[in-house]
Amino acid sequence: MLKGIGGSAGYGIGKVVIISDGKPEYKQHTVTDTDAELQRFENAMEVFVEKTQKMADAMKEKVGGHNAEILEGHIVLMSDPFMQDQIKELIGNGECAEAAVDSVCDMFVSMFSQVDDELTRQRATDVGDIRVRMLKILTGTPDINIGDVPAGTVIVAKDLTPSMTAGIVKENVAGIITEIGGKTSHSAILARALEIPAVLSVDGIVDQVSDGMMAVVDGCEGVCILEPAMDEIAEYETKRADYLKEKELLQIYRGKDTVTADGTKVALYGNIGNPEDAKGVVAADGEGVGLFRTEFLFMGTDSLPTEDEQFEAYKAAAETMQGKEVIIRTLDVGGDKDIPYLGLEKEDNPFLGFRAVRYCLKNEDSYKVQLRALLRASAFGDIKIMVPLVTCVDEIRRVKELVAELKKELDSEKIAYNKDIQVGVMIETPAASLIADLLAKEADFFSIGTNDLTQYTMAVDRGNAKVAYLYSAYNPAVLRSMKNVIEAGNAAGIMVGMCGEAAADPLLIPLLISFGLGEFSVSATSVLRTRGTIAKWSKADADALAVKALSLSTEAEVAELLKAFAR
Amino acid sequence: MLKGIGGSAGYGIGKVVIISDGKPEYKQHTVTDTDAELQRFENAMEVFVEKTQKMADAMKEKVGGHNAEILEGHIVLMSDPFMQDQIKELIGNGECAEAAVDSVCDMFVSMFSQVDDELTRQRATDVGDIRVRMLKILTGTPDINIGDVPAGTVIVAKDLTPSMTAGIVKENVAGIITEIGGKTSHSAILARALEIPAVLSVDGIVDQVSDGMMAVVDGCEGVCILEPAMDEIAEYETKRADYLKEKELLQIYRGKDTVTADGTKVALYGNIGNPEDAKGVVAADGEGVGLFRTEFLFMGTDSLPTEDEQFEAYKAAAETMQGKEVIIRTLDVGGDKDIPYLGLEKEDNPFLGFRAVRYCLKNEDSYKVQLRALLRASAFGDIKIMVPLVTCVDEIRRVKELVAELKKELDSEKIAYNKDIQVGVMIETPAASLIADLLAKEADFFSIGTNDLTQYTMAVDRGNAKVAYLYSAYNPAVLRSMKNVIEAGNAAGIMVGMCGEAAADPLLIPLLISFGLGEFSVSATSVLRTRGTIAKWSKADADALAVKALSLSTEAEVAELLKAFAR
Repeated sequence: MLKGIGGSAGYGIGKVVIISDGKPEYKQHTVTDTDAELQRFENAMEVFVEKTQKMADAMKEKVGGHNAEILEGHIVLMSDPFMQDQIKELIGNGECAEAAVDSVCDMFVSMFSQVDDELTRQRATDVGDIRVRMLKILTGTPDINIGDVPAGTVIVAKDLTPSMTAGIVKENVAGIITEIGGKTSHSAILARALEIPAVLSVDGIVDQVSDGMMAVVDGCEGVCILEPAMDEIAEYETKRADYLKEKELLQIYRGKDTVTADGTKVALYGNIGNPEDAKGVVAADGEGVGLFRTEFLFMGTDSLPTEDEQFEAYKAAAETMQGKEVIIRTLDVGGDKDIPYLGLEKEDNPFLGFRAVRYCLKNEDSYKVQLRALLRASAFGDIKIMVPLVTCVDEIRRVKELVAELKKELDSEKIAYNKDIQVGVMIETPAASLIADLLAKEADFFSIGTNDLTQYTMAVDRGNAKVAYLYSAYNPAVLRSMKNVIEAGNAAGIMVGMCGEAAADPLLIPLLISFGLGEFSVSATSVLRTRGTIAKWSKADADALAVKALSLSTEAEVAELLKAFAR
Repeated sequence: MLKGIGGSAGYGIGKVVIISDGKPEYKQHTVTDTDAELQRFENAMEVFVEKTQKMADAMKEKVGGHNAEILEGHIVLMSDPFMQDQIKELIGNGECAEAAVDSVCDMFVSMFSQVDDELTRQRATDVGDIRVRMLKILTGTPDINIGDVPAGTVIVAKDLTPSMTAGIVKENVAGIITEIGGKTSHSAILARALEIPAVLSVDGIVDQVSDGMMAVVDGCEGVCILEPAMDEIAEYETKRADYLKEKELLQIYRGKDTVTADGTKVALYGNIGNPEDAKGVVAADGEGVGLFRTEFLFMGTDSLPTEDEQFEAYKAAAETMQGKEVIIRTLDVGGDKDIPYLGLEKEDNPFLGFRAVRYCLKNEDSYKVQLRALLRASAFGDIKIMVPLVTCVDEIRRVKELVAELKKELDSEKIAYNKDIQVGVMIETPAASLIADLLAKEADFFSIGTNDLTQYTMAVDRGNAKVAYLYSAYNPAVLRSMKNVIEAGNAAGIMVGMCGEAAADPLLIPLLISFGLGEFSVSATSVLRTRGTIAKWSKADADALAVKALSLSTEAEVAELLKAFAR
């Protein structure tokens, strides 16, 4: 059994097909007719752009916008004048086009790889992907077509790039295993979009398998088994059937209210990363958007988005949700999210650094652009503003001052907005949890970000595998912190929601019901399951379990208890 | 007024003397007689070793061991076979000795500078220092003698290296300003040892001053003023006189118990970094050691210290303290403290990473060596074991299991130790604070590490200047956290101490008295002042202030209140 990261839930059993991203061989040689070689490169570029656009279009059809955008980004990246000039200079010096492309891409890959930030490293993957495709075009090597794999295939790859997966036929792919990539990698996003079970970050997997080998992919636990025994295959066949059956059964919750077993209604929202995702929330029967991350607007460009660009995006989400609540988080830059053109300095501990509201309040001019766009969009739906990484009362007070200032501005310009727009605080630091009663006097609502709250409470980087054993919301300290926040918010009469992973955890849901959580915001794929779990718990049952859970001293004891009582 | 970091408390007014660490000019040339050039290099090495040893000896006499050790380290560094071979190879290829030394040092400097870790960057400073001295010897450039500066000098330098400061005459130096370096840099350690006011990390200071310019150095607030006005000079003369007078007045607390105004006795201990420092605690009239950091044993060597080496160090501290309590913290590696031979991986957020007890419990064999050495040393004084960075009950339980195991081992080997040795928890994470009641059932004592507790609670890297405005123990969240811990410890009947900077903060001391803190552990230089502050507060007065402080919402309000009521 090999341990990795569960990138997409579900169980798959099938035969391995290794998808290699190896770059084709070529013979390095000196060219004398550099003009002809330059022309050969230009021709290859044309083919590249055309093929990539075609893949992007196919992708758009199959799994929606995000992966297609990445592929379109490849065109932009490869057309970059700096990159083009470097390649052409090498060809001008007599290098063959293959060698020129190879070495310039190499330089970019190693440059991007050195940066300690998932997005920039992702850029390295992109350039690596581009290189392979350019070399294939130049050498005339045929593409491996992932679309040709037979039914029941478990795809094994170092990493899945968007171009490799463009032709994927989801019915034929039982599972995916990759050697690199985390929960937010292309592979994970794609696998979840296609609902293919996937385990990522399995050390050295490519060298351990051969084509045709049987493999089990357990995307729920993040493990895979190579050459499983008969009883293991049977066990996972059962798990798979149960999983699919449960998924089917959950359809009875479609179109229903989200209510506890004793009839208390709570809100069940979806988390989104761009306006397009809001359609997914509607399709999944979410009742609103509990977290709209706005970073996408700032990434993948080379300058700040304008007020109008932002306005359009927020308005689009609000309109898609047709009057339902849309909680939009203001820019959460820094930490593991770098936006190169903002020129943030490299920090020793970026998670403890200049990020989110800290950055925004030191760059009020650009923050005001975002707040103004949010205010303007609030005329088109029920938009609420959420401020991330708050640690003290001053921060939320200052944001409210800015909002008040901008409201006056809009009044004088006679531009419409929701005068009662709510401004809330995302509770994700121990400080915010400790002073939740003080913050509740300033904020219109709370939303607990359990990922960061767990990270800071336990002093554990959530991306660091070495200390992952401590990163759990079942730790008594984290449970107490969540309880404090919910109780403080309820005491002050404001809505308390949760938009971290914990809100969708069936084991935690009874505790959250007991603590009095009013809004659960989960990924679109978890909406029905979460509604189903909530429906199984009455307040009295949840309270009884919570009393037991809070009497325990260790994470392991809590986990064991919650598993034993799981519904 | 220029802002920096207060590296050594006090006020100084005087005339600037710039100490340049510029390397001497030399003419790069090709040598034909490489044997003669090699001999010239060997001769210079001999002079280097001799001069450096002489400086180290002088330093040892003047300010004690640490700075001398650094200089002796320079001899080891420069004698490194790898460095020597590289230099000699270049000379063998016809480079002059100056160029060979220069470029090899350059390589090492840039190698060390790239590492994001204060200690390794310090190593870069060391190599830079070595280079200048070697080039001076080779080119026959005379040394600048810092010992020659006239009385009333404010020394301004990019950085002060141990070799530059070897001849310093403290009576002549009114203050020190440097461009780089933090509280733990050579400059800071030296300035504190010599009791010279110092402000470090003042951006671009060297370019802003000229020799003879007047300057004020305020090491308390970490600011300096260039060309001060007459009234500013008068103001700082008064501050300086008050500061020195207060320091003198504090002598009345020497030899006294530490008691509040209404007669409650508390413990007042010192923080130390090596057994030698214990003498400083005794000299400063400290009543014990509240924090003995053991990292020094593991640093500056190339392998783990043996059990006997550790035993001797712990025993030495215990014996110096003559039966008084000595709380020894087990290895706190990781975070900003790298120990190269342990081979720790580079982490994105080292403060949220694999450090302290986390490392120790995954490397139990070497942890047991330390615990065994501590147990053996406990036969020679009142040693207590303190476990850093605890976040859950499991960790302290496991440490206690290991201690129990080792006690049995020592019993069977008939080796003496204190059978009742206490094992305590350093409370420095939000998690530990939140479950202080649970930890109090397992731990024999608590010591609050306010530096890390503030850092994690506020989600602020304490070394990051960009977010330094949030790093304050006056934040309501941090005050509440400290109060919770102290009350939980007292309720369980265990001693609660504090070994972070906050314990010596005169503004916070009344709150700590009110919360019920039983032990204050401060730097040796703060012992008398802390005793003086504690003597000024009765429990009733402290309680009244605490009620006010806890009713406030912001850090600024708390700071203002505490300043207004400071005694």
